Amino acid sequence: MKNKVGRIIPDELLVDGLEVFQGAYHRDNYEYTKAAPTIKGQVKPLESKLLGSIKEAIVASGLKDGDCISFHHHFRNGDLVAAMVFEVIKELGIKDLFLCASSLGKAQASIVPLIEDGTITRISSSGVRDEIGDAISNGKLKHPAMIRTHGGRVRAIETGQVKVDVAFIGAPTSDDFGNAAGKGGKSDCGVLSYSDVDARYADKVVVITDTLVPYPNNPYSIKGIDVDYVVVVDQVGDANKIAGNAVRMTNDVRELMIAEYAAKCVVNTEWFKDGFSFQTGAGGASLAVTKFLKPYMQAKDIKMGFALGGIVKPMVDLLKEGYIRKIADTQDFDIAGVESVSDTPNHFEITTSEYANPLNKGAYVNKLDYVILGALEVDTDFNVNVVVGSDGTIQGAPGGHTDTCAGSKVSIIVSPLIRGRLATVRKNVTSITTPGETVDIVVTDYGVAINPLRQDLIDQLSKTDLPLVTIEELQEIAYSIVGEPKDIEYEDKVVALVEYRDGTIIDVIRQVK
Amino acid sequence: MKNKVGRIIPDELLVDGLEVFQGAYHRDNYEYTKAAPTIKGQVKPLESKLLGSIKEAIVASGLKDGDCISFHHHFRNGDLVAAMVFEVIKELGIKDLFLCASSLGKAQASIVPLIEDGTITRISSSGVRDEIGDAISNGKLKHPAMIRTHGGRVRAIETGQVKVDVAFIGAPTSDDFGNAAGKGGKSDCGVLSYSDVDARYADKVVVITDTLVPYPNNPYSIKGIDVDYVVVVDQVGDANKIAGNAVRMTNDVRELMIAEYAAKCVVNTEWFKDGFSFQTGAGGASLAVTKFLKPYMQAKDIKMGFALGGIVKPMVDLLKEGYIRKIADTQDFDIAGVESVSDTPNHFEITTSEYANPLNKGAYVNKLDYVILGALEVDTDFNVNVVVGSDGTIQGAPGGHTDTCAGSKVSIIVSPLIRGRLATVRKNVTSITTPGETVDIVVTDYGVAINPLRQDLIDQLSKTDLPLVTIEELQEIAYSIVGEPKDIEYEDKVVALVEYRDGTIIDVIRQVK
Repeated sequence: MKNKVGRIIPDELLVDGLEVFQGAYHRDNYEYTKAAPTIKGQVKPLESKLLGSIKEAIVASGLKDGDCISFHHHFRNGDLVAAMVFEVIKELGIKDLFLCASSLGKAQASIVPLIEDGTITRISSSGVRDEIGDAISNGKLKHPAMIRTHGGRVRAIETGQVKVDVAFIGAPTSDDFGNAAGKGGKSDCGVLSYSDVDARYADKVVVITDTLVPYPNNPYSIKGIDVDYVVVVDQVGDANKIAGNAVRMTNDVRELMIAEYAAKCVVNTEWFKDGFSFQTGAGGASLAVTKFLKPYMQAKDIKMGFALGGIVKPMVDLLKEGYIRKIADTQDFDIAGVESVSDTPNHFEITTSEYANPLNKGAYVNKLDYVILGALEVDTDFNVNVVVGSDGTIQGAPGGHTDTCAGSKVSIIVSPLIRGRLATVRKNVTSITTPGETVDIVVTDYGVAINPLRQDLIDQLSKTDLPLVTIEELQEIAYSIVGEPKDIEYEDKVVALVEYRDGTIIDVIRQVK
Repeated sequence: MKNKVGRIIPDELLVDGLEVFQGAYHRDNYEYTKAAPTIKGQVKPLESKLLGSIKEAIVASGLKDGDCISFHHHFRNGDLVAAMVFEVIKELGIKDLFLCASSLGKAQASIVPLIEDGTITRISSSGVRDEIGDAISNGKLKHPAMIRTHGGRVRAIETGQVKVDVAFIGAPTSDDFGNAAGKGGKSDCGVLSYSDVDARYADKVVVITDTLVPYPNNPYSIKGIDVDYVVVVDQVGDANKIAGNAVRMTNDVRELMIAEYAAKCVVNTEWFKDGFSFQTGAGGASLAVTKFLKPYMQAKDIKMGFALGGIVKPMVDLLKEGYIRKIADTQDFDIAGVESVSDTPNHFEITTSEYANPLNKGAYVNKLDYVILGALEVDTDFNVNVVVGSDGTIQGAPGGHTDTCAGSKVSIIVSPLIRGRLATVRKNVTSITTPGETVDIVVTDYGVAINPLRQDLIDQLSKTDLPLVTIEELQEIAYSIVGEPKDIEYEDKVVALVEYRDGTIIDVIRQVK
């Protein structure tokens, strides 16, 4: 069946109530009864929930063939938890598991053999990068992977589409009842936003920490009342790989030009006023926008109401300097973010449901004025691909891209027009992650294209010196320089579904040849 | 049917799965699937959830005959919210409502006519005091009221026994998305612990505030993602009645003696060591115990790990002086508590589920070493009554009494042996609130009785100069002074059920003659 963005979704995949994408706000006011875990009440006081090892916890949890287990990715490239858990699972010979991760990358590369041998047969994740991305792209996972946005993952769990049997939550600190925090310890990751939904909806919850602290561990993100077992290990994360020490502030002239255009798009539209809200990605051009905004805020004597999302040093600096009133933090990309959250006044952790879940009563993204995001590819309908490389392999993640585009008043994509001898703006994208109807402005080094759906933005930005062009013009320029991209050859087998945040299917990804 | 504490529970009341009390820990490891609300997803960004009036919110919520509505009692005697909501309900003519409050008292007296005219036909509450207590005791409520502990109320909602259709949450501050805090504003009550479960489990949630603040209102207790509507009114509480300015520190010689005995029970038992945990009620003798503990802590050079529950100035002072490491706060009884929570380092708000829910994976009460509590009456089986006055009318509240007795290692009841020419320690109590198997020590001005179930405490306290007696001796002394209490005469009609925290029925209360 063809969906609203023109992608063919094979009918045989549309089972268990799955529908094709029917528009960004098709499920507005969708009514449902939330899912709920099955738990055991601890009426009689228990001294502690500490168990001696991950193996003991897995055995105690009753994990069995076919179950769903979950992990967060706050430790990013430094995560040691998933590898430790899967080593025990392999030893125990548990098979046919559904791995529901908030994201997967290099740190989990050791699970590839478990994909190949049928230990893991289903995967739900935002990012599926590196070795795992290759394994999936090459058809090694038994069932198609489900690529979900950050908001979409929470939605899938809260609606009951995904039922987590056992959640494994790596925590920088915990007490012996499982009150667990993202802040502190030797593997400090700042927040545990992604795990909030796992703790609340999984039947069994295992907290794994390397820093046991006295009860009660306030302030904490994961409540002990939701936790069954606590395991202390030597190390849950490699601190050097959790958060990069320094975020690269770009010197690339092309990126700086793109950032300046994007900043002009922000400051010349109506929502740039005292109390405006703002999010950027962590890419070079995106980050630079934050830097460029400051003088405009000074000139207009206004402050940002709140900054949202994954946090890095430039945002923390603006908060400390008084240009931002509050930061609502769901992830920390660098040491400055980790150190600041919960310590700098007005730098708060929020949960991922609060951040981006499309089916709660109003996520933070719905209050967002501006978001600046990158793209691998954009098509002339403004559809964006951030998941599949131009070689057809999965190497990216929707993250909060799709969520913030849908929620924000102005979504701005920043990208060089040509990347690695390939056109970024194209007639068709390799895969659709974010539907064009939610993408408002595409800023490139060759000009700025505004989505015709947003006549208000066209009116407002026509008064500036921004080099406005049509998206077709950008595509034509790109093709005139590097030529039309070649079609990628695929096998028939679908290796992944790309889910829109509301649970409908926006695209499928096939096995590369 | 006779229950474990010897009370006859009429069979006709044992419907809808209700069971009689079968022991304090009978439901340990009880397995159940949690309840969940039915909600509508807000996919499309909404500018704000503000409505013009409580009436608009009630109409928007779809409230109808037979529904369940809920309130918290953090505004205590200063609560204006319930009265405002019921005024509108009366105007709209909605009938047969189930009122699920965390507690009811003088501030809600205006609803008595609505009990009489069938607007309110069912009530679940901890306290049912004053005019409402009289109305229920005199048989004016159509169905028997359900008296629940604080933990029991959360349990009833989380298990789905009580389904809240519309929760009305009075909040000192909120933003236009319903992120609501107990702290701040002109009706500051410190915390919103009781409302956490309402926000998470009610289908519709209405936040009513007198202080609208810019989005986002971090830090907050009630998440906007759970809130449907926000209404701004002139005043949600009468600040003078929310928290008393000064807690009375007793000068009563009898109370001071009792407090000193209780303190000696604490300091001479094995859990009085560095990191011990402690809760007291807000009565004169209970509070004085806190004062008496300090020199013992100094002498032994130890600190309290955490203090729990309803907080008053003496606790805050000990925290500020460094004698307490953390306060886990569910309610603030005085201005000092209100001002301190979330502001004094290590004074944290926790939810009522975290505090006392017997059917989560381990509440704070389960980690409590010592609790000091009052009593209206105690029987020779150590059963305690804190709900029904000796005249047979309902005038008290279990609150966290039953929860902390069940969870703590040592529960200590402090009470004068004679109160108002009536024996406190009796052969039978007028009503059983807390089962004797969870009551460890009864401290009176005529001696200290230890529950024979606790041979360990008898061994440890026999080495002290405490005047140890048996509970029967206390009863005999009491009767020798003021005589045997007369039996109260009741009608047949059951006006209230007293629920044990786990959901079983520990007693019934009949209409007074």
